[in-house]
Amino acid sequence: MANDENLAAVVSTTQGDYRVVVARGAIEDIGTEMINAGLSGRAFLVADVAMFPTAVHRAHEALERNGFVTNVMTLELSESNKNLDTVQKIYEWLAQHRAERLDTVIAMGGGVAGDLVGFAAATWLRGVPFVQVPTSLASMVDASIGGKVAVNLPAGKNLVGAFYQPKLVLQDIDHLKTLPKREMAGGWAEAIKHGLILDANLLDTFERFPDEMQSLKGDLAVKTIRRSVQIKAEVVSADEFERGDTRVLLNYGHTVGHAIEAVSGYGKYLHGEAVAIGMMAAAGIAEKLGMLDREFVDRQRAVLQRYNLPVSVSGVTVDAIIAATKSDKKSRGGTIRWVQLEGPGKAVTRRDVPEEIVRASVAEVISKS
Amino acid sequence: MANDENLAAVVSTTQGDYRVVVARGAIEDIGTEMINAGLSGRAFLVADVAMFPTAVHRAHEALERNGFVTNVMTLELSESNKNLDTVQKIYEWLAQHRAERLDTVIAMGGGVAGDLVGFAAATWLRGVPFVQVPTSLASMVDASIGGKVAVNLPAGKNLVGAFYQPKLVLQDIDHLKTLPKREMAGGWAEAIKHGLILDANLLDTFERFPDEMQSLKGDLAVKTIRRSVQIKAEVVSADEFERGDTRVLLNYGHTVGHAIEAVSGYGKYLHGEAVAIGMMAAAGIAEKLGMLDREFVDRQRAVLQRYNLPVSVSGVTVDAIIAATKSDKKSRGGTIRWVQLEGPGKAVTRRDVPEEIVRASVAEVISKS
Repeated sequence: MANDENLAAVVSTTQGDYRVVVARGAIEDIGTEMINAGLSGRAFLVADVAMFPTAVHRAHEALERNGFVTNVMTLELSESNKNLDTVQKIYEWLAQHRAERLDTVIAMGGGVAGDLVGFAAATWLRGVPFVQVPTSLASMVDASIGGKVAVNLPAGKNLVGAFYQPKLVLQDIDHLKTLPKREMAGGWAEAIKHGLILDANLLDTFERFPDEMQSLKGDLAVKTIRRSVQIKAEVVSADEFERGDTRVLLNYGHTVGHAIEAVSGYGKYLHGEAVAIGMMAAAGIAEKLGMLDREFVDRQRAVLQRYNLPVSVSGVTVDAIIAATKSDKKSRGGTIRWVQLEGPGKAVTRRDVPEEIVRASVAEVISKS
Repeated sequence: MANDENLAAVVSTTQGDYRVVVARGAIEDIGTEMINAGLSGRAFLVADVAMFPTAVHRAHEALERNGFVTNVMTLELSESNKNLDTVQKIYEWLAQHRAERLDTVIAMGGGVAGDLVGFAAATWLRGVPFVQVPTSLASMVDASIGGKVAVNLPAGKNLVGAFYQPKLVLQDIDHLKTLPKREMAGGWAEAIKHGLILDANLLDTFERFPDEMQSLKGDLAVKTIRRSVQIKAEVVSADEFERGDTRVLLNYGHTVGHAIEAVSGYGKYLHGEAVAIGMMAAAGIAEKLGMLDREFVDRQRAVLQRYNLPVSVSGVTVDAIIAATKSDKKSRGGTIRWVQLEGPGKAVTRRDVPEEIVRASVAEVISKS
């Protein structure tokens, strides 16, 4: 039976509802959770090579133990091969095994695995059941929930994709044990963001218990990851297709963040790091607009730094960042929709931000070195 | 304003409702119909090169006249390039013009255009508004309605795709004027199939007025195409994802039809021609199972022949056809779900058909020549 102690959230979508399970050792429950989600047929597990052999073997055994005949493919999955060529390799593998409509595709790995394998699942035979097993903190608290799947084109990131909801998201905290410290920080950035935009209590917890959180010891880290997952699940349930005013709030820090990633060349900053810097630029804008006081801006900076996140960028110019924000695909008809805070846990969107205020705020997060 | 005389059906789906408009000269209304469907932004018209220049220009003018800034791409679209390479060309073009989330992609052409351009629309920026302008009879009465979009892989047809509903389907009967007679027949096969499986009156109309229908003169042909469209729309509205027992009925004649296409090499028989032969094999099975009498089988044969459709296949063996039916992707767990008639307009599914009956019925539709 499904263990409801481990249930972080149920996501409610037009494609059905699904559970997000967060626990230490959760991978042992993958078979029972899949049965509970109504899945049958075979399992096609696509794992990042970094999860091989130990984590892959545990998943494989837990699946077979519950009657899922399982095929495994391991791939080196990174931003540089997050493209249609890699998707095609998965198609060929599925074709070779004659994967059918009721078989399940499982993505195991970080954000790239979920996005790319999810796109393959969304499009193989017009969509087969899909399960997310995110193994990085960033994909746990953010990318694995909400059904956004995509790959890159030479012309830009995530230009090709779908809204395709998984049947289950299974997060094993033990998978984080081997995650490099810098990648952990990138994940905390998104989790802290959830507090900043929608939950002052969550922000408070991050500020008060940075050591417990970062050591992942005891219950608090697991509970806090669950709470962050819950926020993402609520936002997605309220605004599945990002057509309303809710899901866009998750883009706090992302307008300048995406620009920083593009201008500095993808890979120099992790996504979460760029978002942290972007959140500082956004807070600077809010301060200049009279929405936030200086004290809160300092508070935001302090919590990000406490989680080993950068709060300034080097080697870029204001002009380059401004130009890149304008080509971000979330702009509509040329005007940028900024996500701004009015206070802890209170995010709003603004379209009327004067460019000189943006420029001044971007300048403040560029370090001279 | 929208012209409701031309409205054939409203399709109701989880992705929203949409109109299917069928009329002579309907392309003149594309701009007003798109406004009526709530579309704004720019239009990206991808047309089969066969529609260039006249039909493309008329569409372009009707769009611009209603305020849609329009970009046009013409492509040679055929079964042999219905693949991801061609989709990638469309992505590159959309990237070059920075097509945004509220811009509309329009497919103008036959079934390949709708399937392939629809897949590009479904996946560009995770899905942008999509309009179908089918210009072959087969795509009008069948493929353009229901949201099935797909491309081929070397391993098989339509293995990669999505369920992605258009915002509007606009069918201009004038586009059929230049369609080769053989392709018209292939379209009639699907329209007659709708009568056979779900509407005895429609079947009756096809039997009584073959000349009026095939000449496309007068009102009757337009009204009959509308009725066939309606049936498809009702089936799709009842069973959007082909999970129930309704949409599968549209596969009447398709189990053996697909096998004939695969075994004789794609291109030898048009899809509708193969389906016509497949419907004769299915009727033979039903007769042997005691579901249909010989008289009705002869009646089905006569109407198909009257519309210039083949009722037997040459150059294939029973063994090859049987083997191909077993690898059809609609089989689940190995058993084939046969669509059978119990009488005119009355289709059911059967899983328990003995192989010797299938073999005997397939043998009957193989000609010795």
